[in-house]
Amino acid sequence: MYFTRHVVCKTRVSPDLTAFRPFIAELARASADFIAPYFGNPSTAVDFKADDSPVTAADRGAEAVMRELITKRFPDHGIIGEEHGNLNPDAEFVWVLDPIDGTKSFITGVPLWTTLIGLLHHGQPVLGAIHQPNLGQLVIGDNHTTTLNDRPVTTRDTTTLDTATFVTSDHRNLARYQDGPATDRLIDACRLYRTWADGYGYLLLATGFVDISADPIMNPWDIAALVPVVRGAGGIITDWTGNAPYPAESILAAATPELHAAAMATLQV
Amino acid sequence: MYFTRHVVCKTRVSPDLTAFRPFIAELARASADFIAPYFGNPSTAVDFKADDSPVTAADRGAEAVMRELITKRFPDHGIIGEEHGNLNPDAEFVWVLDPIDGTKSFITGVPLWTTLIGLLHHGQPVLGAIHQPNLGQLVIGDNHTTTLNDRPVTTRDTTTLDTATFVTSDHRNLARYQDGPATDRLIDACRLYRTWADGYGYLLLATGFVDISADPIMNPWDIAALVPVVRGAGGIITDWTGNAPYPAESILAAATPELHAAAMATLQV
Repeated sequence: MYFTRHVVCKTRVSPDLTAFRPFIAELARASADFIAPYFGNPSTAVDFKADDSPVTAADRGAEAVMRELITKRFPDHGIIGEEHGNLNPDAEFVWVLDPIDGTKSFITGVPLWTTLIGLLHHGQPVLGAIHQPNLGQLVIGDNHTTTLNDRPVTTRDTTTLDTATFVTSDHRNLARYQDGPATDRLIDACRLYRTWADGYGYLLLATGFVDISADPIMNPWDIAALVPVVRGAGGIITDWTGNAPYPAESILAAATPELHAAAMATLQV
Repeated sequence: MYFTRHVVCKTRVSPDLTAFRPFIAELARASADFIAPYFGNPSTAVDFKADDSPVTAADRGAEAVMRELITKRFPDHGIIGEEHGNLNPDAEFVWVLDPIDGTKSFITGVPLWTTLIGLLHHGQPVLGAIHQPNLGQLVIGDNHTTTLNDRPVTTRDTTTLDTATFVTSDHRNLARYQDGPATDRLIDACRLYRTWADGYGYLLLATGFVDISADPIMNPWDIAALVPVVRGAGGIITDWTGNAPYPAESILAAATPELHAAAMATLQV
């Protein structure tokens, strides 16, 4: 049985996702409803990275809401969550949850945080949602098609760094991972660079507003949702050495294969 | 007569702004209505800094809408605008207009651009508005009181860099203005640094979500709106050497006097 599943995974036969697409939107909305009162609230902003902070409460509570919906609807599915740990992580279908990706945006009242929800089938991401509820933007991708609020979107056709917009969470994160000059080369080679990143950077990539999104340090719950979204929009997503993006410890996504190759070469010189 | 006006200015006797506060909100809404169809539109995003681009059309058109409202309502007032130049700039009251501050956010579909509207009285800013229409955030300040959507707001009470959030438009702009190590010192001395800036950085400062906002290169239409907003919220705003912020070529704003002094010292070491 395990072997059969392994073959299915390797040959990338897509499962029937018909039931899951509306369900992932339902999860995103339920999470957003729980989180809403915490955002843009100065008392939330004050508690910076403290345990038991309002941010942690929002994160944990929203994950609990989603876990309850999943276990009721699909009791044989597994769950991987940042806050409440793993439940049956070797199941055929596993949901990967991060209610508040971009905590620093969240505590600063900047609506570039997102809720990330991924669905794994035999260990590989087949469906993903990136939701920014303050802006009313819900992106869902299944490796083949990506939609923004139910309308199909695609990446741009940018192929060269000098016409590319590049986003990442913090240029100092890049510097920690790679040597400084390599980081500066990528930033300087691109037309525009900003720290509009975390999950929102990949939403901007999939909807055709930026061309490269890269983060050097990633966890499974940061990545699972991004892969089907970026691929469904026509983009390329790997780790920083060109290997498969899930599981991985870094992510480099680009609008086109040419641009992805150019960015990777620049980072690795 | 000129001498009398000069004395009024120097002693900072405030003019009666009763009629202007609702009018500045009217200007902000009229500008937003004109700009709305251009934002989040991929065809707008494509035209990067080209003349006659959709961004330029939105900027020019919105400024024209505001100029018409001003000349109808207050025909003796002057106007300083980025796109359409100066009209009677030595008048007792002069409006300073920047319909789209944060062009790079705007073309990237990121709702951190703002409309900046300032009112000068005898050459000094007495009323300012920072409007982010996608987020429904309208901040108005008069050097004494600042409101967000009609509710009073204040800066945070942060006094030390190690607990401060610092925003600027692009860390490379800072590096161009000051020597690199000084810039890095301020970024590294602060708890959190991001490029959520342009006019929106000052909105975040005035509403208590960030503690320092600094930009090394500023025009009159970038600054006039910010001064009454920051001061009305209890913040400190000067140029980078501690001189008066209007007119100036750089801006350093902070939540408290202690934090402002610490930031200025760090930049100037």
